[in-house]
Amino acid sequence: MGHKIIVMNKKFLEIADKYKPKLNIERKVLKGHDCLLKENDSDIYDFGNHYTGSIKISLSTKGRFPDAPALLKLRFAELKDEFEEDSKNYHGWISKSWIQEELIHVDYFPTVLDIKRVFAFRYLEISVVGISSNYQLHVDSVELEATTSAPKLEAKGNNKREKQIDSISLRTLRECMQEEFIDGPKRDRRLWLGDLRLEAITNYETYKNYALVKRCLYLFAATATEDGVISQSVFTKPEVFGDEASMFDYSLLFIPTLLDYYMETFDKECANDLLPLAIKQIEIARRRFYGDIINDSDQLGWCFLDWSLELNKQAGAQAVYIYAEEALVKLLKLLGKDYKIYLEDIEAKKKAALNVFYDKKLGLFVSGKDRQISYATNCWYILCDILSEEDSADLLIRLENNKDAIKPVTPYMYHHYVSALIASGLYDKAYDVIMNYWGGMADLGADTFFELYNPQNKDESPYGGKQVNSYCHAWSTTPSYFLRKYYLKSR
Amino acid sequence: MGHKIIVMNKKFLEIADKYKPKLNIERKVLKGHDCLLKENDSDIYDFGNHYTGSIKISLSTKGRFPDAPALLKLRFAELKDEFEEDSKNYHGWISKSWIQEELIHVDYFPTVLDIKRVFAFRYLEISVVGISSNYQLHVDSVELEATTSAPKLEAKGNNKREKQIDSISLRTLRECMQEEFIDGPKRDRRLWLGDLRLEAITNYETYKNYALVKRCLYLFAATATEDGVISQSVFTKPEVFGDEASMFDYSLLFIPTLLDYYMETFDKECANDLLPLAIKQIEIARRRFYGDIINDSDQLGWCFLDWSLELNKQAGAQAVYIYAEEALVKLLKLLGKDYKIYLEDIEAKKKAALNVFYDKKLGLFVSGKDRQISYATNCWYILCDILSEEDSADLLIRLENNKDAIKPVTPYMYHHYVSALIASGLYDKAYDVIMNYWGGMADLGADTFFELYNPQNKDESPYGGKQVNSYCHAWSTTPSYFLRKYYLKSR
Repeated sequence: MGHKIIVMNKKFLEIADKYKPKLNIERKVLKGHDCLLKENDSDIYDFGNHYTGSIKISLSTKGRFPDAPALLKLRFAELKDEFEEDSKNYHGWISKSWIQEELIHVDYFPTVLDIKRVFAFRYLEISVVGISSNYQLHVDSVELEATTSAPKLEAKGNNKREKQIDSISLRTLRECMQEEFIDGPKRDRRLWLGDLRLEAITNYETYKNYALVKRCLYLFAATATEDGVISQSVFTKPEVFGDEASMFDYSLLFIPTLLDYYMETFDKECANDLLPLAIKQIEIARRRFYGDIINDSDQLGWCFLDWSLELNKQAGAQAVYIYAEEALVKLLKLLGKDYKIYLEDIEAKKKAALNVFYDKKLGLFVSGKDRQISYATNCWYILCDILSEEDSADLLIRLENNKDAIKPVTPYMYHHYVSALIASGLYDKAYDVIMNYWGGMADLGADTFFELYNPQNKDESPYGGKQVNSYCHAWSTTPSYFLRKYYLKSR
Repeated sequence: MGHKIIVMNKKFLEIADKYKPKLNIERKVLKGHDCLLKENDSDIYDFGNHYTGSIKISLSTKGRFPDAPALLKLRFAELKDEFEEDSKNYHGWISKSWIQEELIHVDYFPTVLDIKRVFAFRYLEISVVGISSNYQLHVDSVELEATTSAPKLEAKGNNKREKQIDSISLRTLRECMQEEFIDGPKRDRRLWLGDLRLEAITNYETYKNYALVKRCLYLFAATATEDGVISQSVFTKPEVFGDEASMFDYSLLFIPTLLDYYMETFDKECANDLLPLAIKQIEIARRRFYGDIINDSDQLGWCFLDWSLELNKQAGAQAVYIYAEEALVKLLKLLGKDYKIYLEDIEAKKKAALNVFYDKKLGLFVSGKDRQISYATNCWYILCDILSEEDSADLLIRLENNKDAIKPVTPYMYHHYVSALIASGLYDKAYDVIMNYWGGMADLGADTFFELYNPQNKDESPYGGKQVNSYCHAWSTTPSYFLRKYYLKSR
């Protein structure tokens, strides 16, 4: 959908601005290693955990007076094995400009290289691409200046494994808490609605930075189109600007995000300010229906659900619509407003979905002309509360046993799978998925949880090359939410 | 020779500092071309002449909001056909860090890229290495801030060709006149003695910046070793430092450089300050003699003469010694000091040279055990005034007809060839060499004269790849000296 007319809502923008956090700065200085670098030499510095920030490198020389500049390559990596990849080999469809690599000439020594860009990394590799044979380079120190708007917080857990997973989740969220909740500090470094929703609920169980959620809600509200379409993401640098694109599901998820925030804060000002826009999302989405059944994928516009191009989104999109409308009803109830027409719409859409998308023979929801079976479709129907808890549990067992069902690809979809298991009372199974799926990343040495993780194919990337994958991604932060909300308290 | 003990002469350094020029700044703004750049696009900006300075690029975007950084490659070229070369293919022994190429990430638009480094160029190529397909780049303007310590000066000439060659010479010198007389603004960007001497004499006929010559003489004096060895070059950034290496001929050429300066200025303070160091160069060089014959190349240390590794330097080195000692005698005479012992030494060295290095059968000077014939050897003997003008002229004709004679490689050696022709009264031949050799560069579209030019092999480089060759080099500036001193006035 094109962002035809941009009429920035100034009042909302001012409120967003008012809640802009002051970033906490952490400085970490690594002493230079005891070695001299000549041409083609390289050295790796390990900051011990994932950080988001910029660096200064103090350099001096040994040997004769530097009689030529030095040409350095800096590479920043979230995972150490990223260094095994050569940026020259990346030919994916997302811009290679995301690869965290700098080539820098240094004319005079000693010097402090002050690299003004922000990087997301634990490891820094300094390589000498070109230097005169008359002198060698010495790294005196590497200084990191990292930022986050999250406070410090101790990991929790009833055992080492839970504590490890909570710790990695916390770190993931912390790194994505900058002046907004961003999707990932490596890429795209901006506020996305799908990520915000999961960051917010995890934040309520952990850092409890309510102001930052409020700021983000107002940023989306401020940048909606004149027609009320909420963007898929908001840019804030160099200035606030709503992404010209929107997604069917992300726009709708503004409503549960607002509901979750209200239930945490009872912030009536915010709820009343943003309610009209929440209602508007349902009205806009309803245009995508023919009667009570939503258009199929090809006429729907982009509906995300998961990073899977083979996924048919029709049935899942209808489930997200119902899920969002149910959130709207709850919000209207809480605000003492009339909600009857939405309740009627929900019933009609559920009835139609059961008629059209539920395959009685399979006992599963299917999507599209080809009646495709997927975790995405079925989990979203469980989340929109169309079946009883018992029926949901039975469906999830059938789903698991169906070998044709398209599995989740991203932690974002795994989050919804775990949510569906919990909604169906399958707490132990949900716990196992958390421990196995996110635990799998932990076993790979993750300091933060990845944007993409397929236990069957560790090199998977929807971008045509994993060099642009983000290894600290907001939508992967929810193990802390699940553990702290459902597991740690009750044990 | 190692620069064992560095005792910077503070008095000399202060004088050098006092004569540090204020650079003239020239700004030139090119309007951006009417095109949008996407991935793999590139565009070339032509500043119309050779400049030495830094640039600012104003960038904006078209299309959707920039949702990824842009990765730009900037290449700077003195000659347009340098763009046909790929820096990846350079594997020479001089550092590839000299290649004028920058890779820069731009995170936010619009922006002004302020590239703080200094480049030597006429052409700037801006390429988009990586960018999101959602937007395109527009270059709004490219602003150059160029520096020189030379004033503006009109080219002279009795015809178009002379004026063209004078103009290119003037430009070459102007570009090399920065806070010091540098060898070349691309490479090495520093004060070298061999270059200084030729820059100074050309400067006397053109820009007449005597203070800059004085500064450079004092810089060499300030950075001589405790033993009095004058460095081959002086670094001035980040601070003044004498190159740890010296060259047999360059150290000696300090003397004629001082003499030339004194004859132009009658600056007694300078001559008296630096005379002891001039004398010292003869004393140091004399240690390289066994009796009255200089050591052969392998025991001589580095004697430059020309960029030719096959060249035997023995006989030429002795000629440079005599040439320098003759300059010392002239200087002593002018200062009313005793010079007799140097005159006696000159006579002894000349006599020995004629005995050992002059091949009566060939009628040419030869060098080394293998009795190698070269322009370098013979021209330097003519310059040290060992033969009558008539005999010199005959020798040069024989040299020209000798097919084994090693030809000059650099404009530096061509300068000495032309000087020898003039010293032998062969004015027309000298004129032809200027017109043909430097004219050959002009015909290739040179805005400035090159460090290296071999009419027989245009890709020649002593560095293992012409990508590090400098196309604006001080030692190539002397056509203006020759034309203005010997040709333009007399016609």
